[in-house]
Amino acid sequence: MMQPNIPETGQPRVVIVGGGFGGIHLAKKLRHAPVQVVLLDRNNYHLFQPLLYQVSTAGLEPDSIAFPLRGIFGRQKNFHFRMAEVIGVRPAENVLETGIGDIRYDHLVIATGSNTNFFGNKLIEEHGIGMKSLIEAVQIRNYVVKQFEESLLMADEAEIKAKLTFVVVGGGPTGVEMAGAISELRKYILPKDYPELPLHCMDIYLVEMGPRLLPAMSNYSSEKAQEGCERLGVKVLLNTAVKDYDGQTLLLGNDQRIATKSLIWAAGVKGVPVKGLPADIILPNGRILVNEQCQVKGYTNIFAIGDIAQMTNDPRFPKGYPMVAPVAIQQGNLVSENIPRLIKGQALQSFHYTDKGSLATIGRNKAVAEVGKMKLSGRFAWLIWMVVHLMSLLGFRNKMVVLINWFYRYLTFDRGTRIIIKRGAANIVKLRQSVLTEPEIVGR
Amino acid sequence: MMQPNIPETGQPRVVIVGGGFGGIHLAKKLRHAPVQVVLLDRNNYHLFQPLLYQVSTAGLEPDSIAFPLRGIFGRQKNFHFRMAEVIGVRPAENVLETGIGDIRYDHLVIATGSNTNFFGNKLIEEHGIGMKSLIEAVQIRNYVVKQFEESLLMADEAEIKAKLTFVVVGGGPTGVEMAGAISELRKYILPKDYPELPLHCMDIYLVEMGPRLLPAMSNYSSEKAQEGCERLGVKVLLNTAVKDYDGQTLLLGNDQRIATKSLIWAAGVKGVPVKGLPADIILPNGRILVNEQCQVKGYTNIFAIGDIAQMTNDPRFPKGYPMVAPVAIQQGNLVSENIPRLIKGQALQSFHYTDKGSLATIGRNKAVAEVGKMKLSGRFAWLIWMVVHLMSLLGFRNKMVVLINWFYRYLTFDRGTRIIIKRGAANIVKLRQSVLTEPEIVGR
Repeated sequence: MMQPNIPETGQPRVVIVGGGFGGIHLAKKLRHAPVQVVLLDRNNYHLFQPLLYQVSTAGLEPDSIAFPLRGIFGRQKNFHFRMAEVIGVRPAENVLETGIGDIRYDHLVIATGSNTNFFGNKLIEEHGIGMKSLIEAVQIRNYVVKQFEESLLMADEAEIKAKLTFVVVGGGPTGVEMAGAISELRKYILPKDYPELPLHCMDIYLVEMGPRLLPAMSNYSSEKAQEGCERLGVKVLLNTAVKDYDGQTLLLGNDQRIATKSLIWAAGVKGVPVKGLPADIILPNGRILVNEQCQVKGYTNIFAIGDIAQMTNDPRFPKGYPMVAPVAIQQGNLVSENIPRLIKGQALQSFHYTDKGSLATIGRNKAVAEVGKMKLSGRFAWLIWMVVHLMSLLGFRNKMVVLINWFYRYLTFDRGTRIIIKRGAANIVKLRQSVLTEPEIVGR
Repeated sequence: MMQPNIPETGQPRVVIVGGGFGGIHLAKKLRHAPVQVVLLDRNNYHLFQPLLYQVSTAGLEPDSIAFPLRGIFGRQKNFHFRMAEVIGVRPAENVLETGIGDIRYDHLVIATGSNTNFFGNKLIEEHGIGMKSLIEAVQIRNYVVKQFEESLLMADEAEIKAKLTFVVVGGGPTGVEMAGAISELRKYILPKDYPELPLHCMDIYLVEMGPRLLPAMSNYSSEKAQEGCERLGVKVLLNTAVKDYDGQTLLLGNDQRIATKSLIWAAGVKGVPVKGLPADIILPNGRILVNEQCQVKGYTNIFAIGDIAQMTNDPRFPKGYPMVAPVAIQQGNLVSENIPRLIKGQALQSFHYTDKGSLATIGRNKAVAEVGKMKLSGRFAWLIWMVVHLMSLLGFRNKMVVLINWFYRYLTFDRGTRIIIKRGAANIVKLRQSVLTEPEIVGR
């Protein structure tokens, strides 16, 4: 009954799986190429992941970091979008299996991105909280605000402390940003909204296995980030592994125990591969081995870009490129040239990564930025961080809404979206009568 | 284990149930009164219901019409908020039963508002879609966008038509606004986002039992509203009852059948009373009988205001006041004077309703407005409608975000928030480990 209904135009069909940074840049660049472009995503929007943590800490509304995919490609004639879950690929037949039926391709580009990596620790996966999707961020926001509301109903201070103690695991940019944002909730929102809850009841820990925060940046940035976190009251634990967590008590590598109901896991991501590819080209971190031309190892007409692609042609990145937007965008651009070359029988081009620098923010007026040899911290780095993020956000409406939220927050110290949107009993059942199935996340 | 933890201050305690227009105005006005104010709501935000339909038609983000209740009362010393579901009342003991435990009161104010009224029709209640809460509006938005996405996957035109046909029941302001907004989706979004779906596949019906739309307004406004709806392509069916609906086919009173998967019910609301009050003071429409001083019939220290209160002291409104925000606000103000008077042993004041006029919008540049004897329609009425709604919206941030969305939509004909936020599999289970229970809606 259900079918993808993609017309055959006679042009070679390029199927792109995933509407992240890589996928949308590739699809856009192909707009004048003599190909049919089919983009698939399980969601109908492009998600600006770098600001997810602000949604989960009540700083931004979820809609402002999501942009409808159809809106991006409104005028692109050779473009088709289908909202679909990808189940697997049959490379021998050039067929992609999806939740809405099989889709034939001439060229396939896997741009499925990454997901939270719990490194096989089942207990932490069960009790810890990941944050890679919009609904996860909204759920975390609901959850965090609920912890405050519920703490008011407790009599025992130990119980309150466990409820208000947040542990963020992972000292990369996401972990630092998340810990900073939670401690700003404590500093600016707790005393105002919950004067009955004393500040000392709320602890925020940032746990990092290695010897410093932001390990991908310079020592200078690591120190500045740690300084910034500690000034906000975050307890930074370095050289500290996480051993176990049962939802109540966190056990650290040094046998320290922390009573906490909330463990936020920002310690790593892994690729989300597509089933049907040979196991030997998929690494333990879920990434797919590609050559310098972004072709999946062993295939001519299957490409992979962004977080999911493992390419080791650059001595600066012997373990593969970092899982960040600029890599995905640049690889998308490369593939948008390589596919037409492949069709014309020309030699493919190789990938050369231009590192544009790194950024991380800790909080109000606090950020670190490294561009080339330049290292910045403080208010100026924070301004750079904001400008870069605003520019990368898709859509004028989203840019304006985010800007207003930031202005408002800067001037008032308030967070406007600290609301709990509960699941409603009423409509949810009847609205389920839907053809598109609930998300079944491939590779999870 | 869990307890409301509300301190006893020695002052008389006023417990207000419901953070709608009535409840928050009352609580604010009591800030200098010699009482302790306790506000309860199942949500932690005040919801601006008049703009719910814009959330459900992808015009506004949900967060922009919700304002955190604690943010309103940040500096009010005699104020306490608890997020709680009310279970019932024991008037003889002056005790309110809630999901977080019993709460003692000296004065109780019921401001629980109203909910969708299906008038006892179980089939329609099961298959139709109501819209009174934020999550319902978000679910409708998800649902509407999903209908478009799924229509692309169908081969049979009859099937597509049933999927894209929307029937709105009820010709009041909500029904008119909803039908207008859906037809603007058809006019501006369908051709741009879904060029493969021909316009004629999508029908929008507005079904009203009475002889005209907007029955509470003048004939002039009714005609203008009908004209505006029809110009947008809405099929307006007057004098038409709804007999039956099985989720596939709608049967009308004139035996006409409409194949539709989407019946949006805006035909009425009913009060949401609190259990424990005598049955004979609760009307079939769920409203509680009150005297002219807003006291619940038979009680001195229990009040009811807004949608939930049935007061018939005004010959203009023999069936009780309309269920609109101005009534709730004015009754809240009255009770804020009557409770201190009651405490001091003074005579209570009676309610006199100041009708400030009525408004309804149909779409872009189309609205009707009646203020006193003045009747307006068209672009000027539409501007009034926007100004009044912006002014009534709580919070600077929300006002700005709504304004930007309106500007953006006006200039681009686009709707920025047409995204489907799916329930995620990952976090939802573990984040359920919560003390506050899922909503159990009293009176439903």
